Amino acid sequence: MLTREQNDLLTKTGPGTSMGDLFRRYWIPALHAEEIEGADSDPVRIKLLGEELIAFRDSEGRIGILDEFCAHRTASLFFGRNEECGLRCAYHGWKYDVDGNCVDMPSEPEGTKMREKIKLRAYPAVEAGGVIWIYMGPADKKPPLPELEWIGLRPEQRFISKRRQFSNYLQAMEGGIDSSHVSFAHRFNLDDDPLHSGTEGNKYLKADTRPRFEVSESDGGLLIGARRNADEKNYYWRITQWMMPWYTIIPPFGTHNPLGGHAWVPIDDETCWAWSWNYHPTQDFGERELDALQGGDGIHVKYKPGTYDPIAERSNDYLMDRGAQRRKESFSGIAGIAAQDFSLQESMGQICDRTKERLGTSDAAIILARRRLLAALEDVDSDDLPGLDPAHTNVRSTSVLLPKEVPFEEGAAEAIQVRPGENFVSI
Amino acid sequence: MLTREQNDLLTKTGPGTSMGDLFRRYWIPALHAEEIEGADSDPVRIKLLGEELIAFRDSEGRIGILDEFCAHRTASLFFGRNEECGLRCAYHGWKYDVDGNCVDMPSEPEGTKMREKIKLRAYPAVEAGGVIWIYMGPADKKPPLPELEWIGLRPEQRFISKRRQFSNYLQAMEGGIDSSHVSFAHRFNLDDDPLHSGTEGNKYLKADTRPRFEVSESDGGLLIGARRNADEKNYYWRITQWMMPWYTIIPPFGTHNPLGGHAWVPIDDETCWAWSWNYHPTQDFGERELDALQGGDGIHVKYKPGTYDPIAERSNDYLMDRGAQRRKESFSGIAGIAAQDFSLQESMGQICDRTKERLGTSDAAIILARRRLLAALEDVDSDDLPGLDPAHTNVRSTSVLLPKEVPFEEGAAEAIQVRPGENFVSI
Amino acid sequence: MLTREQNDLLTKTGPGTSMGDLFRRYWIPALHAEEIEGADSDPVRIKLLGEELIAFRDSEGRIGILDEFCAHRTASLFFGRNEECGLRCAYHGWKYDVDGNCVDMPSEPEGTKMREKIKLRAYPAVEAGGVIWIYMGPADKKPPLPELEWIGLRPEQRFISKRRQFSNYLQAMEGGIDSSHVSFAHRFNLDDDPLHSGTEGNKYLKADTRPRFEVSESDGGLLIGARRNADEKNYYWRITQWMMPWYTIIPPFGTHNPLGGHAWVPIDDETCWAWSWNYHPTQDFGERELDALQGGDGIHVKYKPGTYDPIAERSNDYLMDRGAQRRKESFSGIAGIAAQDFSLQESMGQICDRTKERLGTSDAAIILARRRLLAALEDVDSDDLPGLDPAHTNVRSTSVLLPKEVPFEEGAAEAIQVRPGENFVSI
Repeated sequence: MLTREQNDLLTKTGPGTSMGDLFRRYWIPALHAEEIEGADSDPVRIKLLGEELIAFRDSEGRIGILDEFCAHRTASLFFGRNEECGLRCAYHGWKYDVDGNCVDMPSEPEGTKMREKIKLRAYPAVEAGGVIWIYMGPADKKPPLPELEWIGLRPEQRFISKRRQFSNYLQAMEGGIDSSHVSFAHRFNLDDDPLHSGTEGNKYLKADTRPRFEVSESDGGLLIGARRNADEKNYYWRITQWMMPWYTIIPPFGTHNPLGGHAWVPIDDETCWAWSWNYHPTQDFGERELDALQGGDGIHVKYKPGTYDPIAERSNDYLMDRGAQRRKESFSGIAGIAAQDFSLQESMGQICDRTKERLGTSDAAIILARRRLLAALEDVDSDDLPGLDPAHTNVRSTSVLLPKEVPFEEGAAEAIQVRPGENFVSI
Repeated sequence: MLTREQNDLLTKTGPGTSMGDLFRRYWIPALHAEEIEGADSDPVRIKLLGEELIAFRDSEGRIGILDEFCAHRTASLFFGRNEECGLRCAYHGWKYDVDGNCVDMPSEPEGTKMREKIKLRAYPAVEAGGVIWIYMGPADKKPPLPELEWIGLRPEQRFISKRRQFSNYLQAMEGGIDSSHVSFAHRFNLDDDPLHSGTEGNKYLKADTRPRFEVSESDGGLLIGARRNADEKNYYWRITQWMMPWYTIIPPFGTHNPLGGHAWVPIDDETCWAWSWNYHPTQDFGERELDALQGGDGIHVKYKPGTYDPIAERSNDYLMDRGAQRRKESFSGIAGIAAQDFSLQESMGQICDRTKERLGTSDAAIILARRRLLAALEDVDSDDLPGLDPAHTNVRSTSVLLPKEVPFEEGAAEAIQVRPGENFVSI
Repeated sequence: MLTREQNDLLTKTGPGTSMGDLFRRYWIPALHAEEIEGADSDPVRIKLLGEELIAFRDSEGRIGILDEFCAHRTASLFFGRNEECGLRCAYHGWKYDVDGNCVDMPSEPEGTKMREKIKLRAYPAVEAGGVIWIYMGPADKKPPLPELEWIGLRPEQRFISKRRQFSNYLQAMEGGIDSSHVSFAHRFNLDDDPLHSGTEGNKYLKADTRPRFEVSESDGGLLIGARRNADEKNYYWRITQWMMPWYTIIPPFGTHNPLGGHAWVPIDDETCWAWSWNYHPTQDFGERELDALQGGDGIHVKYKPGTYDPIAERSNDYLMDRGAQRRKESFSGIAGIAAQDFSLQESMGQICDRTKERLGTSDAAIILARRRLLAALEDVDSDDLPGLDPAHTNVRSTSVLLPKEVPFEEGAAEAIQVRPGENFVSI
């Protein structure tokens, strides 16, 4: 349970907010690279941390991330012409380069001094791993890019999707660090879903619904061990990585299924981007896997055409099927791992009121993640914030059987390291 | 005309409001019994007096009315599994019985003491007359159920519908205690509508549009006599019962048409349930009547599929037909008795601003009803509130010819009593 | 750039606001005459300056403009019956004449004194030029009607349309006094559009995108000269008339195309009516022109059926076609002169935040128009407000070549006068 003040601190990320300042210290996954593909791409609107931005590539392929609105009369640059190394406003032709400089002011007298004084807010951006990353913080504090494992892989080895979630980022992210709900919300689909099935671990997940949590601080955030009974000698451990400020890596479901994870990025305080990725460290996806990934199985979704919004949504009760619920084809009656999560998360209200919750021992990781986020607010200018060092994000999650007497940090020490060319560890 | 303060007092019914406290002293018609039919029914969301609730029947057929949101992390129990005498949250499996007790907490260690401390807000509920009634007030103040006549009849004798109205309850209810508008809004349909036609009274209703109102306090609320000229010796009286807090009984249209009435129940301050019933005290509905009732004639409506929302609504101008208006097929151009009322009531704004109204003598009953509601706020804890005693609601309305010299309370004294096995009185 | 206070002053026009008081000193174009055609017309809802009104013609053809809501219980008179010289509320039959007097109160006792005390807010209205004009100001201050040239022409010579714009009136109007954007937003359509093509001026408009502005105060508002280079000896002048409070006349595109202009009338602070007219002073429209006008070419639009709302709208990105943008078929990718404007204007937000703008020399006319509006607030009761005298609106715009040494006010002095029976001047 949080106080109202704590809940506000954690959930508000617009310009000028404390958490907004913290989040602006990190690189932000913002767009699929193909959304602004090729030189002189179509300009695309993107909202992040409450700021309305326009994204494009210029004629040289450089990425521009600018304030969406022209400095002149505040018309949207979405209507702009992207041509000859700059985005030109459709209203009076003012043109901006990728750094926000006004490079042409064709409505004003030739040689006007005014041009040099005009500069749009602009953010640095890079492409990595098929994603455009944006940095919205102080120029002198720009960290290196995160080194999430999939970023360095070939496209054939990874699948990245994003969807809009109609809730604050925090309740979405809390789902990602909560191993406990898997035994319930996804219970009847673990063995169905083509990206989760066929693994020994599912047996334990179903048999023991009362995981014991052991959580320790990692360099980047938290290392979350959720322990379930396996057999007389062993525990089944699902070990989740949470890295500041918004990354979660899902403990794998066998080594034949890909490893997966999420980034939970605020669009504004009421909506967020749920980035979802799967990858194989040592092989390409097979055809059937690709069908499943593209078809919206696993942690991915089916979209409304032309959008990143799932078809299953609040207005259609997420296509709930009470028959499927009764027949134990789905725990909540909702189809799909992803929709099973976000339906529940969105039902908490657009910003979950945490003054009303009643947390248990299984919420230990959530409690500690909030605490670590709040603690980071104390020293928002620090260069040692968890998650800033690329090594902090270059980690794996794992699921393992360990002898009961072995501490999980010890038993999984190797498994949670990224070892290029070697597959991850999972049973 | 009311002051702004009076209007607020009368129209706000959420938790902690004065009128909200008053309304919570009474049983509330909440759901059709068939909405949660049979053991282990589907859980259904229901909002009343601004509170979001979930309704279900457990494996024993007991009715549960709980806070919609799980005590744990505030996910909606709409997604819950209804099984083995309790509703289980789809997120982490916490399970609640019909009294709101947490009876299973499978995500926490076996035998956790936490379980016993968790209790969801729960309200008592009973089924009567095909309707689920909820009591949301202080436990020690729970009154007996109302004894509206139709509750005790066989299903074949009664027809009960509910629809959502997009206005505050009060302006809807005021329509129900306002005999005067019948001569106008429904003027051209009294003889058309299969549930209102073929009665002598319609002639007087049309001929004399200036009813004189005589209103006296009844035990349960008000007895409202609206007098119209009939012939030299007689008045035509339409006598409406208004019973606290929200019941109105329509003066009948002959004895061949069923008797009807309403309950006007706040969903929140901007919307309300318009419950509408018809019944025959002494016979079953005929086939043609049932067709009319189910087809949305009389005080009932045609619905948008899968909802309790009328097809005719603000966004489509209630399907107004100016041609029909001009041809005097409908006074306002809108089809159907019900839509003729709620189109006008919704046009007053979601909460009618009564500081702007200008009331006349024909609004006497409305003025007195407001006054009685406000007076009841003075003693909201009283056990003698009008309408609490079941006998207060066990009454009839009537429409009669009375010699001019006979006071209506006297002349209609028998007609407004429920006499089981005897039909109501109407011309 | 404005202060927040200035921006609020200029954009808020509801009852009791300063600009609202100013605007109420002028006649307001409110409805097409055919919207309330013939005696006993259908009543039509109309919102102006934040006031909700009902418009109708009575049995004698007189125009009534009344408060939309019945004085009795505040039901909308939209549902009213228009009959025998008055509009009768559908709820209880109260009937109002075109002056707002309650002329019948059939729900109250015959001869009730109450009737005489009831009066609805009513505004004078007249029909002129196919438009219903309303005066919402102080009775003793009512000016004569404006004398915009098209008002006096035969219907065959003029075409008047209105559309709803989803922005404050001011940013819409600023588009109308901004000659500069034509070289950009409409660049690729000047020679395409059947109502703008085939004129020498288009050549200069495209060649010189840096008009020099010379603006002088006219009796009615501003005379705005935008000068572009033509040849060695001459400038190409586009001379726009802006007349208080909201009229703009577009400099013509040759004399074979009709002359055009706009009125930008606040519906409320977030939406406005964009009235658009074209006319020939000396001839009727040809068939092809009429096709173009009715088909939504030029400054007109295609509507959603049964509305005055354009099909191209924010929710469908104004039907933007990036291919057409890339192929230089449209500067912004949006089709149609009108949509090219309002897409950009609506993108500024419903009320443009002018504290963020950065104005240049090409915004001189906009700056002066705002200044003149603000200045008029200083003496809102004056009988000499610009635009009040009908002669102030009886003017033309023009587009001319003038020798470089000739001041535009001098060179165009005749061209900007209305000379009945003579065509306007344009190259």
